[in-house]
Amino acid sequence: MRDVAIIGVGMNKWGELWESSLRDIFTEAALLAIEDAEVDHIDSMYIGCMSSGLFVGQEHLSSLLTDYLGMGPIPATRVESACSSGGLALRTGLIDVASGMNDIVLVGGVEKMTDVSVHGATFALSTAADQEYEVYHGVTFPGLYALMARAHMHRYGTTRKQLAQVAVKNHYHGSMNPLAQYPQKITAEEVIESVMVADPLRILDCSPITDGAAAVILAPLDLAKKISKKPVVKIIGSGHATDTIALHSRKDLTEIKSTERAAKIAYEMASKSPEEIHLAEVHDCFTIAEICVIEALGFAEKGKGGPATEHGMTTLGGKIPVNTSGGLKSKGHPVGATGVAQAIEITKQLRGEAGERQVKNAKVGLTQNMGGSGGSSIVHIMEVV
Amino acid sequence: MRDVAIIGVGMNKWGELWESSLRDIFTEAALLAIEDAEVDHIDSMYIGCMSSGLFVGQEHLSSLLTDYLGMGPIPATRVESACSSGGLALRTGLIDVASGMNDIVLVGGVEKMTDVSVHGATFALSTAADQEYEVYHGVTFPGLYALMARAHMHRYGTTRKQLAQVAVKNHYHGSMNPLAQYPQKITAEEVIESVMVADPLRILDCSPITDGAAAVILAPLDLAKKISKKPVVKIIGSGHATDTIALHSRKDLTEIKSTERAAKIAYEMASKSPEEIHLAEVHDCFTIAEICVIEALGFAEKGKGGPATEHGMTTLGGKIPVNTSGGLKSKGHPVGATGVAQAIEITKQLRGEAGERQVKNAKVGLTQNMGGSGGSSIVHIMEVV
Repeated sequence: MRDVAIIGVGMNKWGELWESSLRDIFTEAALLAIEDAEVDHIDSMYIGCMSSGLFVGQEHLSSLLTDYLGMGPIPATRVESACSSGGLALRTGLIDVASGMNDIVLVGGVEKMTDVSVHGATFALSTAADQEYEVYHGVTFPGLYALMARAHMHRYGTTRKQLAQVAVKNHYHGSMNPLAQYPQKITAEEVIESVMVADPLRILDCSPITDGAAAVILAPLDLAKKISKKPVVKIIGSGHATDTIALHSRKDLTEIKSTERAAKIAYEMASKSPEEIHLAEVHDCFTIAEICVIEALGFAEKGKGGPATEHGMTTLGGKIPVNTSGGLKSKGHPVGATGVAQAIEITKQLRGEAGERQVKNAKVGLTQNMGGSGGSSIVHIMEVV
Repeated sequence: MRDVAIIGVGMNKWGELWESSLRDIFTEAALLAIEDAEVDHIDSMYIGCMSSGLFVGQEHLSSLLTDYLGMGPIPATRVESACSSGGLALRTGLIDVASGMNDIVLVGGVEKMTDVSVHGATFALSTAADQEYEVYHGVTFPGLYALMARAHMHRYGTTRKQLAQVAVKNHYHGSMNPLAQYPQKITAEEVIESVMVADPLRILDCSPITDGAAAVILAPLDLAKKISKKPVVKIIGSGHATDTIALHSRKDLTEIKSTERAAKIAYEMASKSPEEIHLAEVHDCFTIAEICVIEALGFAEKGKGGPATEHGMTTLGGKIPVNTSGGLKSKGHPVGATGVAQAIEITKQLRGEAGERQVKNAKVGLTQNMGGSGGSSIVHIMEVV
């Protein structure tokens, strides 16, 4: 397999983009990435999108988006793995370049969530869970993550305030990201007093509904070194794993096994340990998710994710800053785009372009993106070369 | 890139499978393929599915189907490119094995179309067209292909009877396929007198709504030769291309440019010309589609697809039998599964396992799968080694 690097990144301002359609927001992000990479062509394209069928009545994004980007007739592939669709697009694009099939590959992610055509957004998102055994009985994602939160609190003594601290930290980070949907700083009291969604999770524990897109350009490392005018970010590890789709099939509600396994594969491929990671972007769809995930990634011991967050380990300036972009919580969560945007934040940090929220001496970063209640996870490790 | 071969195939009887859910029919086909390949594990999985979100309210098939197949935690990827999702799954699986990332890869396709949850099947299928500029104005696929048929008849003198002959031939072939949804032989008169759908296309010009799944097992060629007890089918060419999603953006309604380009790439990679192909499975979603496609593939001159069909060139026993499986028309068209089922028919023919419908001395076969009105196409060429 050939070594692969990221040579360009592009992302638009996320939010409720009522004046733009799916094709508009994707094209904008893709053109920004092409401009950043300073390439004059692309050879193939991978698009992460969870449910454009339910959100805007449009499938066949491969044809639509190459068409509107003016890139037809290049091959294009849309991949879907619920909220990890963006991370999966990065991985399939990586495999394409690594195989030698294509050289300059655009990996994009997109979701247009605020123009819901028929179903509500909650129904569209619920299709990431088990339709026959979970959704049919009325459960939606806040409920599933609430079960995980209650189990974690019961077993490990994780507190309401520790959950809130994830949101406080990520909004603090997001306040330094001009592209974030909700760049407002918030306090733990505001989280704890916000409206209840699914006990113990309140509205400020939940990531928002967002329109947004993100894109990166991949190239073989050798070519990247020749053509890139910016620091080249090599992808040194890639792990991908699945778990049962339904939460009720898991032995332990507090563990994200698919992330543990994907991380193990990525660490081995990269020859890195958790201690050698300088910063990470992880899947904080709900505050409890970030606590479980930093444990699954080995940044905190099992059951210690809450105290680690409370004591600042994952805050900018701490031992391992997590979600310096603002994460899903503050930056927004257009589900298909999230995994690609994580790679953008790590690239910007490793290039030293993160401005106010720059992590000092960041050389190695990690992204973790997951689908559903952890039914799929994708982990990448990147190093500036 | 490593050479890649097909070492196992599996498909269930297609039809209106009201007693089975999406997960049931996929698992059945996948287990048949695993049994046929006689492998004791798989390393990763690719799933072609167009719109399980709209058809059954379920995305995240990567997690669901590894779970129900008992294959978690292996990595799994769902790909979508409308009706070419199955062909795309084959191509992404091929790239995965070629890259060296994984060895034994299951490529499956599935669609459950008769349990439509909210929208009708016609709406779900229409999401393969341009939602904003075609579907919004009321056009659906029979209408789009009717425009192509009228243009072909006007420019080249293609006749109503020649269109009918595509259906007659494919139902004749399908009558020898025990897994076909509609294995009844039909006559040209029956086609021409069947109920009108979109002038000039009648119901017997249209492929049906189908529940079905299909799966193949891929392996690196070297490993395949060691472990396979059956003739090994090497994938010697793979081409993938896109075109404008909307028909109104094309210069010529009679040409499938994405197929022309995908075929050119596949022929070059395989070092084969159209004359060296012994049989083909092509995308006859409507009768006119097969006529345009055999021209795009170089089996007939431009404009001569109608007469070539009428004179038996593509019938079993003719110069190049097309759709010996019965094609989409008779075998059925569960959209995500179709491209994978095409690879199954070619594999069975090249192995000499096609029974009554066996093409004599078949050594090289081709599959052509397309999305929408030709917005995406995927062509593969296979040779028995």
